[in-house]
Amino acid sequence: MKKPFSVKAVVSILQQLKQEQEFVALHEPCFQGNEWEYVKECLDTGWVSSVGKYVDRFEQMLQEFTGVKRAVAVVNGTAALHISLKLVGVERGDEVLLPTLTFIATANAIAYCGAIPHFVDSSLETLGLDPRKLEAYLGDITEERNGQCYNKLTGRRIKAVVPMHTFGHSVDLDPLVDVCERYGLELVEDAAESLGTYYKGRHTGNAGRLSTLSFNGNKVITTGGGGAILTNDEELGKMAKHLTTTARVAHRWAFEHDQVGYNYRLPNINAALGCAQLEQLPRFLKEKRSLALKYQQEFSSIDGLHFYTEPEFSTSNYWLNTILLDSNHVEYRDVILEETNNQGIMTRPSWRLLHQLPMFSGAPKMDVSVAEQLQSSLINIPSSSKLGARNVKA
Amino acid sequence: MKKPFSVKAVVSILQQLKQEQEFVALHEPCFQGNEWEYVKECLDTGWVSSVGKYVDRFEQMLQEFTGVKRAVAVVNGTAALHISLKLVGVERGDEVLLPTLTFIATANAIAYCGAIPHFVDSSLETLGLDPRKLEAYLGDITEERNGQCYNKLTGRRIKAVVPMHTFGHSVDLDPLVDVCERYGLELVEDAAESLGTYYKGRHTGNAGRLSTLSFNGNKVITTGGGGAILTNDEELGKMAKHLTTTARVAHRWAFEHDQVGYNYRLPNINAALGCAQLEQLPRFLKEKRSLALKYQQEFSSIDGLHFYTEPEFSTSNYWLNTILLDSNHVEYRDVILEETNNQGIMTRPSWRLLHQLPMFSGAPKMDVSVAEQLQSSLINIPSSSKLGARNVKA
Repeated sequence: MKKPFSVKAVVSILQQLKQEQEFVALHEPCFQGNEWEYVKECLDTGWVSSVGKYVDRFEQMLQEFTGVKRAVAVVNGTAALHISLKLVGVERGDEVLLPTLTFIATANAIAYCGAIPHFVDSSLETLGLDPRKLEAYLGDITEERNGQCYNKLTGRRIKAVVPMHTFGHSVDLDPLVDVCERYGLELVEDAAESLGTYYKGRHTGNAGRLSTLSFNGNKVITTGGGGAILTNDEELGKMAKHLTTTARVAHRWAFEHDQVGYNYRLPNINAALGCAQLEQLPRFLKEKRSLALKYQQEFSSIDGLHFYTEPEFSTSNYWLNTILLDSNHVEYRDVILEETNNQGIMTRPSWRLLHQLPMFSGAPKMDVSVAEQLQSSLINIPSSSKLGARNVKA
Repeated sequence: MKKPFSVKAVVSILQQLKQEQEFVALHEPCFQGNEWEYVKECLDTGWVSSVGKYVDRFEQMLQEFTGVKRAVAVVNGTAALHISLKLVGVERGDEVLLPTLTFIATANAIAYCGAIPHFVDSSLETLGLDPRKLEAYLGDITEERNGQCYNKLTGRRIKAVVPMHTFGHSVDLDPLVDVCERYGLELVEDAAESLGTYYKGRHTGNAGRLSTLSFNGNKVITTGGGGAILTNDEELGKMAKHLTTTARVAHRWAFEHDQVGYNYRLPNINAALGCAQLEQLPRFLKEKRSLALKYQQEFSSIDGLHFYTEPEFSTSNYWLNTILLDSNHVEYRDVILEETNNQGIMTRPSWRLLHQLPMFSGAPKMDVSVAEQLQSSLINIPSSSKLGARNVKA
């Protein structure tokens, strides 16, 4: 029989993480591989910056790991999104669909293109964009003009959809791909959180025309700051490399550029870190999965909440572990956050829903009641791979 | 008496650089200080990413070195320019004045704001923007409307001027500041190339309302990739930090953002490199100056060209050393480039003038005949600090 819900019961499970640590981070990186060796080589050879073998090697390794034809390493996930949106043809005044429950970067990248974010609801099953609800909504509000999708209410073209694989769980991609095809929308997967996550056995990031990764310090692997653009379209891959390296035309010494480009390339020293990290990714994934399993067991003993587990079609990286309070206990969300953070156990709520932020408050949106429900009930709990390693040993 | 001009005479001076080296770079970094120690500390503590003590320390050190009140470390010089232009109020449809002889980043940052680059001529004295020629031009083409400067020919507002301290030589800032005041233009100094360069004893970057630095791998010091925004206006400094860190509102755990921000912060591991590099900057500057002196002596023996030396008001870092061919020898520029690069001695011409690039060919410009003359006659020659160190010893 389950224990009744109490803040104390929740906190006591998380307190077990402390053991020898003063502070338990939400997600900290682990450098136990060749990080030193590779970074030191950059310093010893002087190749730390925009050219060097680690950028090429990192891109190659990312291609092998994710199965995409072309990976382009860039300076962070936001930059990857910005360029991907430009490359699928998002223009000033277009609308781009995205979940309201996502990190700010997704919406910012849309704004950088001069486009307008158009917010979509999430699914309880995946925590990400709900393709079925989206389809019904598009049926109501859009019309086709010259083979393109237009929002009847605003008169603007809707150009693309950017789902985000929330906390490392894949959205349901098959029905989403169908919706995109039916409505003539470009699909850009924001896979910032889902390196190591598979949808029906295929790595996330393969369904979109372009997809993006992030290697920020809090991600499954880190390059300090970094990201990547993924694509199975070789031409788009070439364009992504060109646009992210100031659109410079190759020449032995001359400086020619054929369009307004971006200085978004990943420095070689950061790519070196990425290579060492990627070598360890299979271990990180195993440790993270074992931590999730442990959490699942522990939290199943308490009534009134549940530990979120991967949907059946997703083999998830469990980037950030998540508990969801039942609706009659959501008033305790902030008490739990306060109590755990006071004790040096880092937890956090979901991002503020993007349509609630001042700069996006006037943007179009559908009914987002599921995202609102998730926001009120969701808590992310410590998820570093090393916490799983410890559990494995214990 | 001078030797007559010949390609061979020029090349033979540069051949002396080779000594034990197979290849002489245009400008390569030197890691002989605490680089490894600081970077290793980042790896050992796990603080490689968006938070960490080296970012703060690097900003502090930059403030001390340049004398500005606030330095904000960012991901590269282009990002620094982009945010600086936004912060001085450059808006979509504005024009921004800049030299046509500069790196593409200056114009790209203007384009990111939706503004239009307006190209200005250079001065033979500084290789940078010519303030006197600019003043005469503005007198002809502008008019004041509601206290703002408008281009009579295009009807667009002219909001700002972005001089660039070419190859590390300061433009003549006093008359430029006067022009900006007289015409109500914001001054943003692109000091990407001039860390360690002083105008009348004051470090470059202090005259503009905001200024920018670059720490790309080819610069006087490097962070792999990196840059900084400098300002003596504390409020602008705070805004620069806010805008470059996703405009997140401080909170222990919540994710709130109050405007469309940018993911432009410098990772801690790159800042660590920057701290170690900045410690060595005084030595680099000394070595680079000794190299320039040596070049000056050597090239003074040949007729038909001259080695460019700092204007009297500039104590220059001699970032990239420069020779200028007399007008009757410019046909040999490409022969010299070909010959030296074939021999593994890296040299390069000036950037293609920006108004000649396809994406900026329709942009407004003044007479740029001096920039054209410079482009045809200018060659950058190897400038790494270590080449100077060797000369000092020899």
